Amino acid sequence: MLIGNAIVGQSGGPTAAINATLAGVIRGAKDAEKKGIIPTIYGMRNGIEGFLAENMVNLSQIFDSEGKLKTLEATPAAALGSCRKKMKSPEDDPKTYARLVEIFKKYDIRYFFYIGGNDSMDTVSKLAKYAKEHDYEMCVVGVPKTIDNDLTATDHTPGFGSAAKYVAITMKEILRDVSVYTMKAVTIVEIMGRDAGWLTASAALAGISDGKGPDLIYLPERKFDVNEFIASINSAFEKHPAVLVAVSEGIKFADGRYVGEGLGGRKIDAFGHVALSGAGKVLEGLVKEEIGCKVRSIELNLPQRCASHIASATDIAESVGVGFAAVRAAVQGKTGVMMTIDRLECEEYSVGFSSADISAIANAVKRVPDEYINEEGNGVTDACINYLAPLIVGEITPEYENGLPKHFVL
Amino acid sequence: MLIGNAIVGQSGGPTAAINATLAGVIRGAKDAEKKGIIPTIYGMRNGIEGFLAENMVNLSQIFDSEGKLKTLEATPAAALGSCRKKMKSPEDDPKTYARLVEIFKKYDIRYFFYIGGNDSMDTVSKLAKYAKEHDYEMCVVGVPKTIDNDLTATDHTPGFGSAAKYVAITMKEILRDVSVYTMKAVTIVEIMGRDAGWLTASAALAGISDGKGPDLIYLPERKFDVNEFIASINSAFEKHPAVLVAVSEGIKFADGRYVGEGLGGRKIDAFGHVALSGAGKVLEGLVKEEIGCKVRSIELNLPQRCASHIASATDIAESVGVGFAAVRAAVQGKTGVMMTIDRLECEEYSVGFSSADISAIANAVKRVPDEYINEEGNGVTDACINYLAPLIVGEITPEYENGLPKHFVL
Repeated sequence: MLIGNAIVGQSGGPTAAINATLAGVIRGAKDAEKKGIIPTIYGMRNGIEGFLAENMVNLSQIFDSEGKLKTLEATPAAALGSCRKKMKSPEDDPKTYARLVEIFKKYDIRYFFYIGGNDSMDTVSKLAKYAKEHDYEMCVVGVPKTIDNDLTATDHTPGFGSAAKYVAITMKEILRDVSVYTMKAVTIVEIMGRDAGWLTASAALAGISDGKGPDLIYLPERKFDVNEFIASINSAFEKHPAVLVAVSEGIKFADGRYVGEGLGGRKIDAFGHVALSGAGKVLEGLVKEEIGCKVRSIELNLPQRCASHIASATDIAESVGVGFAAVRAAVQGKTGVMMTIDRLECEEYSVGFSSADISAIANAVKRVPDEYINEEGNGVTDACINYLAPLIVGEITPEYENGLPKHFVL
Repeated sequence: MLIGNAIVGQSGGPTAAINATLAGVIRGAKDAEKKGIIPTIYGMRNGIEGFLAENMVNLSQIFDSEGKLKTLEATPAAALGSCRKKMKSPEDDPKTYARLVEIFKKYDIRYFFYIGGNDSMDTVSKLAKYAKEHDYEMCVVGVPKTIDNDLTATDHTPGFGSAAKYVAITMKEILRDVSVYTMKAVTIVEIMGRDAGWLTASAALAGISDGKGPDLIYLPERKFDVNEFIASINSAFEKHPAVLVAVSEGIKFADGRYVGEGLGGRKIDAFGHVALSGAGKVLEGLVKEEIGCKVRSIELNLPQRCASHIASATDIAESVGVGFAAVRAAVQGKTGVMMTIDRLECEEYSVGFSSADISAIANAVKRVPDEYINEEGNGVTDACINYLAPLIVGEITPEYENGLPKHFVL
């Protein structure tokens, strides 16, 4: 068993659960410390970029109480800071890799944990391979996080359940809001997810308790057809005056252009630039033109990925769990792997954690499968609902101070 | 004491607390029923519009349990539906008023409660006057609601505290999100409030616990100056790379044009229409042009007024209380009044409820006073924070089912 210090970093876009995973890794390292395996766990500021500048903090010292870890779990985004650095290969950038090993040796680092999305897993993969080939004994383990839920090998990704819960609750609240008038009105809600429609599909969960959710849901997995869209809105008007539509930011026309680019015409901003105004805004204009009724578009924007006050308790517990499991796996000698959440085949929803070889995962995208999308391409199936529903169950109870949730800030 | 039935309606734009006030009125009526004063309370569907079509429900029957009232209190928007009808004067539209009295007589309605904003208070005022002049004995009482907090006579409006809490929490979460990178970036958050900046001012509350809130706050009470804006962002960059700005949708240039109209150039949409893109989007373009750094704008949109899952417990309790007090006041013979929330001069924040003659209130707007805005016009003062802070205190605990808050739907 490898004895030495650990380093953990956070990378890529924030989620409401990436700090919960960090808390899990710290808990795991503290557990290993008791067994004499990991004396100290360090945190790198701003991912691998900060690490290269030796910008590190001593997490063993900082998190000296259970209370601080609990606050960390309820804090959105990346407490250590993040970066978007895509590592080159050792052949193209030997200096950086040599520098990394130099720092590893200096701090006796034998465990490397990286919490992130696709690009971060690529970093884990390259680093594990490099260490092995250069006889530096180290276990390099990736822990996934993304609100997009588009990583393969894992049933779902930490951070997705909280984003899905935010989307579902917000859609439900918006539905109440837009349903108060008797006048015909269309409300279009644009949801994150450029390549995969998982988060947009979660809008359907708004209706699981009382039957009425969004009328139409458009995912990037299907080509967007203007005529079908207008016809479907008109059909929905036959049922009720307030029509609610969820669209992914990444929906495209049949010719491959993003809907957000507009319908042939181009928006020109105040400075004469062509502006990408987003799928919701473009469809708002389309409805105004083709149907002529009241229409509003709403871009859910950043709160989708940082609304930790309404995080899914299931997601937060799993995010902590998978971080803890990552340390266990590393101590057992795993390297070059990404941790996965595995849905167990039980009557009640339950999960286990394991790991998968990272090389096959790093550059693949898991899209919403055909059987989760309805035939018309404007909604999701019961199978999709059944997959998504358990992920948003449970509410966390963050500590509040002056009416605001307490956050951990380094 | 007038003995007869009651009718209650909801009007204008939704808030997270308008149903709490409805629950308060129903509780008040049930209390009066026990004393033999109000046998039945009816609810009008879609405000005065529905009432004119005798579209009513029997609330005494529907709310036969405390549990249903509790769920109603935690449901956003207007459970009875709403309308935006502005009543003409009896001289201009005698038929409508005659019809109203006809329905009052048919259902023996002696108490009329209307929950709404400015236009609704105008309806209350006209109706009370008409009833008095036509010898129809009836008590007509208005109960305020608006997220804009711009009604006079009352210290603050029901619904505002919950919207302010949503804004403060969301700003705090966005601040965590945008602070993860080391790269310079400006984030501009556009907040509701066309004529008064109360809700935008609430963004400052994001920083009350840990000192760091938005860097700059622009209210419609001050003319917006492009040069000051760019200079203030550059100053903020000297402190940290992530600059967060809150702007009201209603900010205007010195020449009186809305900032949302753009900077001289005009946005043309896909159909050749001039588009109003919103203050946030316009300022996003401005920062891109003048500073050239990464910039994002976020429009908080409808969730500001319907995110009841994170409603302020103070606001909800007061909203219920003021509804209950409205029935008490009516039973005591008050008519042509709007209920008010009065801040008591105590060390600890506490309020009482009273009423004010409506005629002076109906068409006035309460704007953020000078002493609440800093000298530079880009932030708020401690006095403003002290006024706002108690309104967002406390969290409600809505009932959850399948991970979603339960709503009452008629």
